[in-house]
Amino acid sequence: MSEFAPDSVDLVTPQTARFDDPLELACGRTLPGYELVYETYGTLNAARSNAVLICHALSGHHHAAGYHSNDERKPGWWDAHIGPGKSIDTERFFVISLNNLGGCHGSTGPTSANPDTGRQWGPDFPMITVEDWVHSQARLADRLGIQRFAAVVGGSLGGMQVLQWTLAYPERIANAVVIAATPKLTAQNIAFNEVARQAIRSDPDFFDGWYAEHATLPKRGLKLARMVGHITYLSEDAMGSKFGRDLRSDDLNFGFDVEFQVESYLRYQGDTFSTSFDANTYLLMTKVLDYFDPAASHGGDLARALAPASCPFLVVSFSTDWRFTPSRSRELVNALIRAGKRVSYANIDSPHGHDAFLLPEPRYQAVFGGFMARVARDLDLEGK
Amino acid sequence: MSEFAPDSVDLVTPQTARFDDPLELACGRTLPGYELVYETYGTLNAARSNAVLICHALSGHHHAAGYHSNDERKPGWWDAHIGPGKSIDTERFFVISLNNLGGCHGSTGPTSANPDTGRQWGPDFPMITVEDWVHSQARLADRLGIQRFAAVVGGSLGGMQVLQWTLAYPERIANAVVIAATPKLTAQNIAFNEVARQAIRSDPDFFDGWYAEHATLPKRGLKLARMVGHITYLSEDAMGSKFGRDLRSDDLNFGFDVEFQVESYLRYQGDTFSTSFDANTYLLMTKVLDYFDPAASHGGDLARALAPASCPFLVVSFSTDWRFTPSRSRELVNALIRAGKRVSYANIDSPHGHDAFLLPEPRYQAVFGGFMARVARDLDLEGK
Repeated sequence: MSEFAPDSVDLVTPQTARFDDPLELACGRTLPGYELVYETYGTLNAARSNAVLICHALSGHHHAAGYHSNDERKPGWWDAHIGPGKSIDTERFFVISLNNLGGCHGSTGPTSANPDTGRQWGPDFPMITVEDWVHSQARLADRLGIQRFAAVVGGSLGGMQVLQWTLAYPERIANAVVIAATPKLTAQNIAFNEVARQAIRSDPDFFDGWYAEHATLPKRGLKLARMVGHITYLSEDAMGSKFGRDLRSDDLNFGFDVEFQVESYLRYQGDTFSTSFDANTYLLMTKVLDYFDPAASHGGDLARALAPASCPFLVVSFSTDWRFTPSRSRELVNALIRAGKRVSYANIDSPHGHDAFLLPEPRYQAVFGGFMARVARDLDLEGK
Repeated sequence: MSEFAPDSVDLVTPQTARFDDPLELACGRTLPGYELVYETYGTLNAARSNAVLICHALSGHHHAAGYHSNDERKPGWWDAHIGPGKSIDTERFFVISLNNLGGCHGSTGPTSANPDTGRQWGPDFPMITVEDWVHSQARLADRLGIQRFAAVVGGSLGGMQVLQWTLAYPERIANAVVIAATPKLTAQNIAFNEVARQAIRSDPDFFDGWYAEHATLPKRGLKLARMVGHITYLSEDAMGSKFGRDLRSDDLNFGFDVEFQVESYLRYQGDTFSTSFDANTYLLMTKVLDYFDPAASHGGDLARALAPASCPFLVVSFSTDWRFTPSRSRELVNALIRAGKRVSYANIDSPHGHDAFLLPEPRYQAVFGGFMARVARDLDLEGK
């Protein structure tokens, strides 16, 4: 008998796909062979038509649902939405979730060995873009015998990958779900990323990215980067109701130890992250975000950039998300409409800011689950 | 003939007031003698009734208007609002602007000598609060023979000092002008301050605040702190229209050198600040902000906390200010109304975010200048 909830995908085991063909990258460099680590949930149908690809966000990875062991404290990062009967229903869909190239959770990235030198890639790892990710994901689909995804789904930076899928491989994506994302970063988004990068790169333990060879980690910088990130993930209201101006102890200490609960929270989040995430990967992921701008090569006209897309879209935003505000989603929706595409849009009233895309919320689940149920019904009709 | 504009206060010379009576501080410690550096603009009238006190913000100082020399490139930080015919009209008012205790521009602070040790106070400088500042400012008023200010005026952290003046010395303030301020920080405000503090305190050159004795400066930390600050001072729209996604050069470099204009701006602002502002002072100023919460000692009831206030208030907020949003000003206005106080409130439509309080904007000048003109007329009536 399973020890997990009835709507859990239970125990899952990551797998690794090795690719020996070089991958030409947008930056002009070529990545020799590489590996992608991924998980799957559910069963691929005979027609190989029910696959759903999950694209992860900035600090995400392949472990989106279920548990790696009976002892694992928390399930995968999107377990609220992937499982039997959930929005991405594993009784109907075959779900694939990977760690992207450049990641630090098993796929080839800065912590992997550079075949040319035998030592870690470190800062020599080539700069990656969303376009590169999508190409590498298409190769993974080839490997798994999937010609066309029933849906490609992602939140935040994951949503940018979904958007790129509709442009690079319109014939290979039947539906697109773009959640809490944006067609491009604003100057303020880039500014926050730049603070994170400066924090990491100015840490004396960064050693121009060669910290591993110096047997150290730029923990201070990574901690600061994560602290800044967390402020932008939560809404002001969510932070207020979670912490307010509550003090850690009864009295002010008039010093620089933790006084307010929110300070304690941020320091803890930063400390945990600073030893568990690779700094070169974090730098790379922030640049991937900065670079994404499909309209740029079309004179800034997003509707024109979207011309290749052919599938229906679901776009979801959250009312208190100030990292990628609802207006960023509406910019995408308006461009899709101008381009004559099919699009459903929901702005979900939620107090949880950007983080809302990770959480279960009935209205969000109704919209997301409703769209995916239609995707599943279309598959049933195709099968008849 | 003056080399300056006709509405400039022209050349000004800072003065220093020395106080030998110890000052008991809210933190429980006592500051022995101290000095305050200040400037004055305009002429004190015979009744000594036309004095206006300017309270500065986080990184501000006493040099609010005019020039220290003919070679000075930029006038004082609030020159847009102080001068002949300006909102604070120096032909009608005698304006006093000081550097607050704990500052690094001439008043006693962490860079001053500790009389007990002969060396710099550094991190041993006692923690200061808005209450302490107001007491020290009242002593400066005594020294200058000013029993009652025609108005006390300030923006941001300066507005908090104005509010405290109305509570601590209601009989000594005839009018209060509180601009782009808040009756207390939110958890998000504290969170941003905590990132700034962690950036400074985790810089290896900080040496627990004794960097001067190590002949160094925590430049990396102070730079990061300032970069974060600048993001919060500008509105998202202002940053967007100022920089957008414009690139520094024609092509992406796919590296970590400056690519976007906004990165260049932030690095420049951070670098400049990192060698010109004292890190211990910056830490102290952020704590002064965090601590201010006059309602806390009244069970969180701001209206009750405001009971002592007796003067008319002008409260001004700016539509795109997301550091201290218009809703924070409305919280103060509503409490003033509930407490039965006289208050005028204007939310100025401006694209410039929190920084708007420093800028000349016709609607802002009309409201601010209009209120101050009434203050001046009241003085004329008193004189009759």
